[in-house]
Amino acid sequence: MPIPEKVSDLLVKLDIAEIRSKEDLHHLELLQRATNYLAASMIFLQKNVLLERPLSKDDVKERLLGHWGTCPGINLIYAHCNYLIKKHSIPMFLVTGPGHGAPASLANLFVEGSLAKFYPQYSVNKEGLNRLIRGFSWPHGFPSHVNSEVPGQIHEGGELGYALSVSFGAIMDNPDLIVTCIVGDGEAETGPTATAWHSYKYIDPAESGAVIPILHDNGFKISEETIYGAMNDTEIATLFTGFGYQVRITSDLNDINADMATSLEWAYQEIRRIQNCARSGNPIFKPKWPMIVLRTPKGWTGPKELHGQRIEGSFRSHQVPLPHARVDDEEFHLLETWLKSYKFHELFDLSENSFRMEILETLPKEELRMGIRKETYAAYEPLDLPDCRELMIQKGDNESCMKAVGKYCSKVIEMNPKRFRIFSPDELVSNKLDATFQVTNRNFQWSPQTSNKGGRITEILSEHTCQGWMQGYTLTGRIALFPSYKHSWESSPQ
Amino acid sequence: MPIPEKVSDLLVKLDIAEIRSKEDLHHLELLQRATNYLAASMIFLQKNVLLERPLSKDDVKERLLGHWGTCPGINLIYAHCNYLIKKHSIPMFLVTGPGHGAPASLANLFVEGSLAKFYPQYSVNKEGLNRLIRGFSWPHGFPSHVNSEVPGQIHEGGELGYALSVSFGAIMDNPDLIVTCIVGDGEAETGPTATAWHSYKYIDPAESGAVIPILHDNGFKISEETIYGAMNDTEIATLFTGFGYQVRITSDLNDINADMATSLEWAYQEIRRIQNCARSGNPIFKPKWPMIVLRTPKGWTGPKELHGQRIEGSFRSHQVPLPHARVDDEEFHLLETWLKSYKFHELFDLSENSFRMEILETLPKEELRMGIRKETYAAYEPLDLPDCRELMIQKGDNESCMKAVGKYCSKVIEMNPKRFRIFSPDELVSNKLDATFQVTNRNFQWSPQTSNKGGRITEILSEHTCQGWMQGYTLTGRIALFPSYKHSWESSPQ
Repeated sequence: MPIPEKVSDLLVKLDIAEIRSKEDLHHLELLQRATNYLAASMIFLQKNVLLERPLSKDDVKERLLGHWGTCPGINLIYAHCNYLIKKHSIPMFLVTGPGHGAPASLANLFVEGSLAKFYPQYSVNKEGLNRLIRGFSWPHGFPSHVNSEVPGQIHEGGELGYALSVSFGAIMDNPDLIVTCIVGDGEAETGPTATAWHSYKYIDPAESGAVIPILHDNGFKISEETIYGAMNDTEIATLFTGFGYQVRITSDLNDINADMATSLEWAYQEIRRIQNCARSGNPIFKPKWPMIVLRTPKGWTGPKELHGQRIEGSFRSHQVPLPHARVDDEEFHLLETWLKSYKFHELFDLSENSFRMEILETLPKEELRMGIRKETYAAYEPLDLPDCRELMIQKGDNESCMKAVGKYCSKVIEMNPKRFRIFSPDELVSNKLDATFQVTNRNFQWSPQTSNKGGRITEILSEHTCQGWMQGYTLTGRIALFPSYKHSWESSPQ
Repeated sequence: MPIPEKVSDLLVKLDIAEIRSKEDLHHLELLQRATNYLAASMIFLQKNVLLERPLSKDDVKERLLGHWGTCPGINLIYAHCNYLIKKHSIPMFLVTGPGHGAPASLANLFVEGSLAKFYPQYSVNKEGLNRLIRGFSWPHGFPSHVNSEVPGQIHEGGELGYALSVSFGAIMDNPDLIVTCIVGDGEAETGPTATAWHSYKYIDPAESGAVIPILHDNGFKISEETIYGAMNDTEIATLFTGFGYQVRITSDLNDINADMATSLEWAYQEIRRIQNCARSGNPIFKPKWPMIVLRTPKGWTGPKELHGQRIEGSFRSHQVPLPHARVDDEEFHLLETWLKSYKFHELFDLSENSFRMEILETLPKEELRMGIRKETYAAYEPLDLPDCRELMIQKGDNESCMKAVGKYCSKVIEMNPKRFRIFSPDELVSNKLDATFQVTNRNFQWSPQTSNKGGRITEILSEHTCQGWMQGYTLTGRIALFPSYKHSWESSPQ
């Protein structure tokens, strides 16, 4: 009993042949060849990192750490974010759910020069390349998971499941910002992610920016198939249409760059259309925001098979696909063939000590590069706070302390109309903070009562989502309050 | 841009006029009048609990505790579970996500005599009634939330979100058992619930029983609309079809008993059809299990309006809808009218000191009543365990201790083929417990490799779901292991 065929009409269809310059796409491919090489070599090489002489087993790190499987997908998405940013001058950054794909994130940050902005020792030259590759997952180098030392990151991918909610927190009150969010198909099985798909129901397109969620469905988690990998296109379309999205499945492996560019352009145009309606006084009720499901093989471009077992397109590419490359002949030769396949010498010009011009031309202008967006690192500015003496209770008077806090919060909201929010699992009233409703609204966009009115209060019963929103909001420099379950007795008449 | 109209064909359509005896339905209504009265009076009355004389303010409890809003829905579902059990002699019990609806659960357990089985002081007579109502939320009485002292319960509704996964854990390896699971629409916003809808993808219909999930969509949480309340029928149908279900929306307020009876009968027949296929060697790949979305007003049959504000069908009925009934004239009179509306004197025969025969006739035979199902309380039987000396390592040998534990687990699985399971967030292999795969399978039903083969190992990346499954499995008397994130280094070649 499959889902009726006609439901597959829910999928967004785009003509990928129609668009854009073949030359642009070729340059994006070159960028990905470079970043895929860098990611792979970070995991494996401790010497001879530019393959200037034949690879030897001694060049291979003694301890192999890192996750290859997700890297090619991150590199694909990163390259196409660059392309979209460059074309439309969009303020955008990337939140990467598979934070263990640090080799890919670091590779892109290196190529675009953002690493060097914060760490001059990682400048774009041969010495910087050496340091990046040799130092990865090594004392004093970058760790195998994205951490807060990595530029442009507000999400570390440690406890799985929060990338999506964090992304939504970041775009709140940042009306021009777009956050592209990669959600891994393993991560997508978690509860925090499963309910975070609802987040758009709490985003007012007039006051906030937008998220482009990209479910990277490569089919496998650590050693097992994923739920989303086992769902066909119609099943995927039905589920996410049910969550309120327009669903584009990007999966043309013969022309993935054209498909990805077309899909992201569509997503961008849909976002601007929804925002323009809301900002010109004609808001759409329950707008269907765009999302992308990217279906590419896990560990794409990596080794195909080892000891008769499939690696590319299987869970075996999740971490280190050739774990004994330093000692096993077959693995070593596979590694050598794999690394050479990217022809990195064609991409990095040793005489110029820099990447080829075609690669550098794919990058957005410096101030728009994702690694240096100030939202991701600028210190927050303290709130304007009321003088609490104005709200003091006279000696002998009787007042609920929580009611008084509610009045104080109202003042804070009035004095900081665009940089203070309250996230709560529908426990605002029970915590007696309801004085806040005299100065602001709830922000539930799917209710005619509260849609398109802005509002500082966002209440969803998922504390995971409240937590993720707050993380995204505060790590981009703003302040939030998270009143959770109350301690007072619920039904007390006082 | 609504979802295309044709998608609403996804909804399951049933002819509710076609079915069953009007008399049966009338008796089910009488049962609900009784349980609704009992639930309301538990929240409010400390004296005169049978309304044998005119109500006085002094009869009202001084401290009002409890949640009325969810009770009428629980009573409706409980009555119809009884009806289904009686008709088909099904082993069934109920998991109630809104565990704060304890007045409803207790009312049904009292009427069916299950309370008295465990607590003779709550026998079905006037004295027992008095004790139940007066003692509710009072020292030595039952608390306002379901707890482990309440018969027939394996889920306390404390931390929201686990009812659904707990239900699935309970039916694993109980092939005849059906667990009806009420999921509140507030609870449904949580992450643990949002991903638990996927649980059927890990249920082999040949070896395990079934869950009938009932999303009770009454539209409101504590003081705000719910996400699911704001979704129309087509949106609901699309989302849950996407999760893999056949979706029946039960919402005919003019004939809710006929609708509910028809819907549950359909769900039961669909379950048996799927199970019969699997058990006769013709399993359906990706079977679409039935689910019900029940749309009834919050606090249905309670007070309609107070001080000009709507109560029934709004968040104001969530807890105590008339919080000042002991002191406020308007509230007191509303309470009196409300309680009298159930005409409890017609339902409980004082001369017989028992409920009317028509009510008693709605109950399943004693051994099938939901409050005394032995799965919910019987002590577990210890596993048969191997002699660990058989697996000992010789002094001087070298062996991974986790690999040795894996071999031990394999023996445990072989010796306990139907009462030991492993739940893991895809960390079994990384924990080096993979020896278990030599004696059993993974149980992912959406993969052709592992579907319809049974299997003791269930891996989903949601630790919330693993936790809920384990709770349901172990609280119904079996044993499980939950290997979570590993401590060893992942890529170590050793």
